[in-house]
Amino acid sequence: MNATIVLHKRPVGTPVLTDFRTVTEKKPEPGVGEILLKTSYVSVDPYLRGRMNDTKSYIAPFELLQPIKSGIIAKVIESDHPDYKQGETVYGLLDWKEYQTSTGKGITRVDVEKFPPSAYLGILGMPGLTAYLGLSEIGKLTKGETLVVSGAAGAVGTVAGQIGKLMGCRVVGICGSDEKVHMLKTDFGFNEAINYKTTRNMRRAIAATCPKGVDVYFDNVGGPISEAVLAKINKFARIIICGAISLYNETSLPTGLSVQPFLLRSSALMQGFIVSDYEAKFPEAMHQLTEWFSTGKIKQAETIVRGFDQIPQAFIDLFTGKNKGKMVVQI
Amino acid sequence: MNATIVLHKRPVGTPVLTDFRTVTEKKPEPGVGEILLKTSYVSVDPYLRGRMNDTKSYIAPFELLQPIKSGIIAKVIESDHPDYKQGETVYGLLDWKEYQTSTGKGITRVDVEKFPPSAYLGILGMPGLTAYLGLSEIGKLTKGETLVVSGAAGAVGTVAGQIGKLMGCRVVGICGSDEKVHMLKTDFGFNEAINYKTTRNMRRAIAATCPKGVDVYFDNVGGPISEAVLAKINKFARIIICGAISLYNETSLPTGLSVQPFLLRSSALMQGFIVSDYEAKFPEAMHQLTEWFSTGKIKQAETIVRGFDQIPQAFIDLFTGKNKGKMVVQI
Repeated sequence: MNATIVLHKRPVGTPVLTDFRTVTEKKPEPGVGEILLKTSYVSVDPYLRGRMNDTKSYIAPFELLQPIKSGIIAKVIESDHPDYKQGETVYGLLDWKEYQTSTGKGITRVDVEKFPPSAYLGILGMPGLTAYLGLSEIGKLTKGETLVVSGAAGAVGTVAGQIGKLMGCRVVGICGSDEKVHMLKTDFGFNEAINYKTTRNMRRAIAATCPKGVDVYFDNVGGPISEAVLAKINKFARIIICGAISLYNETSLPTGLSVQPFLLRSSALMQGFIVSDYEAKFPEAMHQLTEWFSTGKIKQAETIVRGFDQIPQAFIDLFTGKNKGKMVVQI
Repeated sequence: MNATIVLHKRPVGTPVLTDFRTVTEKKPEPGVGEILLKTSYVSVDPYLRGRMNDTKSYIAPFELLQPIKSGIIAKVIESDHPDYKQGETVYGLLDWKEYQTSTGKGITRVDVEKFPPSAYLGILGMPGLTAYLGLSEIGKLTKGETLVVSGAAGAVGTVAGQIGKLMGCRVVGICGSDEKVHMLKTDFGFNEAINYKTTRNMRRAIAATCPKGVDVYFDNVGGPISEAVLAKINKFARIIICGAISLYNETSLPTGLSVQPFLLRSSALMQGFIVSDYEAKFPEAMHQLTEWFSTGKIKQAETIVRGFDQIPQAFIDLFTGKNKGKMVVQI
């Protein structure tokens, strides 16, 4: 049999387990020219929350009672496709299923001899590309500047901060536990890290850790944390709106301080960043990330959960920050 | 004697007449190498409100009991300066005084034979440059796109909308009276104009007047009007934060809908625009504006108030939208 996780109900607020349902079906057989894939690693990502709402966004909503899709590493266990051999490993935006067939469309072969398979869901995957291209295309970070990263201990944040250090910048991370603060400073070389959950005055904490102000803000969270950073931006600051995890579960349109006066007085730029807009730059970005990763200049942080049935919980846990680095489910 | 208007108190909320005081002093005499100027036209501008607060911004605050400064057209009535002759007309960022001396620093000669003097405070001055450079440097407006302008009947808005039409765009203006709606459509060629004061559902009005969505938003007002526009922006939209007149008189930090989710889902850009950041582009912009103005392709809208003592009231009236086009005080 074959387990599939479908969207049972559209979450209201923070997702709960009963929003998902596992259904079993017959294990599929590959058709002519197809491959049969066995899922080995499933990526859970905050942006999936948006697709669970029935609202227009940059990517179509998931359909009710249909499988959720995310980045998946799978093994080719049967092949009738000329380009794929049994035993190879591939990456694709695939269904949350134990087994599935594919025509090969949208699938990429990955080299699991060279790098651990989960790296292709993190540092060498969408989160790595997001960090690299967000900084290069919008942040235009230059040596000696100050970079603040929110959601700093997450999949994108850990990479963004390390790139900032490689570029000769002062890097300050904002995260949600003392353990993460320690990890960012010790394992990833951040100059400073702030635990927003135990910091009473975030503005003061930003001012203290960014004595020259903030030049680039890589924002993964939105909400009050971002308001504190905005208060300290420098003239011509660049703010990359990469995510807004603090707002994804709001049941009404989120409100907060008007950003316009902050942008106006600093001639600052704020731009929404969706990595898929920059596909033309993927090869260049991947080349650089691969070089840095293979020479140990950037490191992968990941939280690996085990078991197909754990996928929904792993996804839910993103919103309370249970992950350090990339959250991956190993099947 | 010589009248001078000083900042008597820092306004709390909307400015009132008692925030200003007229003091009289001896008429000054030009020193060695100086010129004596007699004020003929005074520009009142919304951005001056920010300088009346004692807060750090892109320009230093006015000092209490010192003269307010703004763009002024003045006549040289005495000259000990080799470059200026009696009878010439100049523009400068000068004090709200009937008479003042100058070393010539920051002063530009203007040709009042060619264009009416007040044009140098409007279409051929800071507001014209703001409209032109905001659209070209941030808006990057291209033919066939939809441009929405808020504060559309103001000094900057009337020029921005006309430039949008010259560039082959659909232009929709937002303003505060039916008379202004009529003016924008009839005199300035806007495709549509919306009176926000009588429109109950601004989002619906934006959707109805911008059937292809909004590509560029030239924002002079901020607040709820801007929230309605944001809800209708297209992928890769550009939002020029040029002013936030609806927020300048707030006594606490203004709040509203979080813009980050809107920017994120449209990969949109929002940037603070201060014309003085683009001085290197002034000659090019002025060349184009002068050509358009002298060939009748763009027109000046202005509201002229008369009398030196009327300057504070003219300034205050900006916040209730009593002006159509550039508000100027003729002395």
